[in-house]
Amino acid sequence: MNKLVKKIGVASLIIATCCVSTYAKDKVYKLKMATTWGPTVSPLIDAAKDVSKIAEKLSNGRLKIRVDASNKHKSPFGVFDMVKGGQYDLGHSASYFWKGKDLDTLPFTTLPFGLTATEQYAWFYYGGGLELMQKAYAKHGMYSFPAGNTGTQMGGWFRKEIKSLEDLKGLKMRIAGLAGEIWAKLGVNVVNIPGSELYTALERKTIDAAEWTAPYMDVKMGFHKLAPYYYTGWQEPGSELQVLVNKKSFAKLPKDLQDILVAAIRISTNTMTYHHFYLNAQTWSKIEKDYPNIKVKTFPKEVMDKLKQANKEIKAELAKKSAILKEVFESQDAYMKKAREWTKMSEYNYIKSSLGE
Amino acid sequence: MNKLVKKIGVASLIIATCCVSTYAKDKVYKLKMATTWGPTVSPLIDAAKDVSKIAEKLSNGRLKIRVDASNKHKSPFGVFDMVKGGQYDLGHSASYFWKGKDLDTLPFTTLPFGLTATEQYAWFYYGGGLELMQKAYAKHGMYSFPAGNTGTQMGGWFRKEIKSLEDLKGLKMRIAGLAGEIWAKLGVNVVNIPGSELYTALERKTIDAAEWTAPYMDVKMGFHKLAPYYYTGWQEPGSELQVLVNKKSFAKLPKDLQDILVAAIRISTNTMTYHHFYLNAQTWSKIEKDYPNIKVKTFPKEVMDKLKQANKEIKAELAKKSAILKEVFESQDAYMKKAREWTKMSEYNYIKSSLGE
Repeated sequence: MNKLVKKIGVASLIIATCCVSTYAKDKVYKLKMATTWGPTVSPLIDAAKDVSKIAEKLSNGRLKIRVDASNKHKSPFGVFDMVKGGQYDLGHSASYFWKGKDLDTLPFTTLPFGLTATEQYAWFYYGGGLELMQKAYAKHGMYSFPAGNTGTQMGGWFRKEIKSLEDLKGLKMRIAGLAGEIWAKLGVNVVNIPGSELYTALERKTIDAAEWTAPYMDVKMGFHKLAPYYYTGWQEPGSELQVLVNKKSFAKLPKDLQDILVAAIRISTNTMTYHHFYLNAQTWSKIEKDYPNIKVKTFPKEVMDKLKQANKEIKAELAKKSAILKEVFESQDAYMKKAREWTKMSEYNYIKSSLGE
Repeated sequence: MNKLVKKIGVASLIIATCCVSTYAKDKVYKLKMATTWGPTVSPLIDAAKDVSKIAEKLSNGRLKIRVDASNKHKSPFGVFDMVKGGQYDLGHSASYFWKGKDLDTLPFTTLPFGLTATEQYAWFYYGGGLELMQKAYAKHGMYSFPAGNTGTQMGGWFRKEIKSLEDLKGLKMRIAGLAGEIWAKLGVNVVNIPGSELYTALERKTIDAAEWTAPYMDVKMGFHKLAPYYYTGWQEPGSELQVLVNKKSFAKLPKDLQDILVAAIRISTNTMTYHHFYLNAQTWSKIEKDYPNIKVKTFPKEVMDKLKQANKEIKAELAKKSAILKEVFESQDAYMKKAREWTKMSEYNYIKSSLGE
């Protein structure tokens, strides 16, 4: 199996190049997958279900995966522990949720001011990213695979326009993770409120701003009815989900079903990325028409500059705490100089000149 | 099989949802694939070979595909006819090469000022694009599947800077396809010279400019040694390759091998897209250092405006000649308004603000 993971990291194929021996032709293998997502959280739960559907088809019914949404196992943020402990063979979630358990797992979803989806996939598959991710998860007896990208997320919904750094002082904002730590350095009062209470908190002015994801998922939260300034993002430029795989469960599969499982994850990854892009484009087009008062804004340059500075400081602190984080930052920083230059020259400049900018 | 194609077009899965019956467990099925690419034209030939490798693995050796590079079958632009006629079961090529045989096949690679790779994949898989492509190929007894994207290609290498529309009059440029027709409308003397003779033509000043692909493939041609103005692109914003499949060959496969073949194509598609991105980023970084005299330029606004206008005129003419082209243009134009708005709000604005622009 080391060959498989190594190959995933360095070669042009997602699946093993090693020989495939005879297989138990009719034996049906059953696996269980726990997801962080509720049963209606599209397209995340669909991506998890796709892994199951595709694996079953490609194996002609020999590999069956039961997918449990979070309402079933009641522990959306217990996925890491349940897969590690073997209660579940597989998990569908996001790596940065586990930073409290193991800081090494933090950087594999996205990093503020980091790589876009395309840049990051190229880093995972060709730039050594996948190998670094396996290194971070090895001590937990798990593999981790890319599982679908949200694309660049929005910066959040604000009740009032942010015109200067001054406007941030004491602003109450719901935003999680590294982005929250960065905003706090700029004087924002970062609060953590469960998703189910966010609408009411914004309505009652307990908070002034809320960050969630992107139009498709944001609109379901109803923020657009309360906070008309919709800011472009910098904090999650290309958030990648992950499928966690218990190594012992994986080792019990015949080689061809191992290949099929990895292939099913890879197809689902690709599917979710384009599905989410499509849903966001469709949703935004409708919202833009129905709520003409909504204004799309980018934070002023003085705010962006401070955000970048705070991000640098936080990364420097984190690198001291984890050797793998340090290695990931160095790998991504070196790669990003090249990758971003090409993004700029190619797609970015194309869009810029198409817009006449 | 209609179910499969329908499903590919509209659902979140690339593979059939219909039932899979018993399969001939040990029978080995052998297919042949012809490619337009020569044996060393990486990453295009690798993408074709990946289909074969992945299909063999996922089928546990029951599906074997022999991949013939163009030096083997001697007919790089005969791929369409050879797959249609059944001499080959599969072909790896690009749809726009067949516009002389059937104008309906033209729009499935890329269109000038059209969709980027991500936008186009979302259109293929969720916006009805794949169904339109199958419609175009149905009359030839073939399926056509996305097979890897080059990303936004560059606009070409120029011996002299283009400062105005005036500079284009009589300029001798090698550029193929629709882009050539568009440049011709601006007074460019568009010439068609085989790839193998291009370097010499540029060296001897038989031509003033040459368009090819993007840094990784361009540098192998040596243009950077002769023409220091490297222009950003507009003519191929996200060129998608295609795998052609002879319907009779496909029908002979058991259902699970049909699914495996489609899955192998899908994984290879995804792989090639990120592989090419990575190769371009790496190559450009090296070239930029080794050839500091090269200047990356974007055509002046007056040139871009005329290119857009000429493109519109040509599209209007084409739409009169083919009902499918008309349908594709309408589908893409309506979709692009939404898709580009989301691209702008998300990734484009992120990069813009990261650059401090």
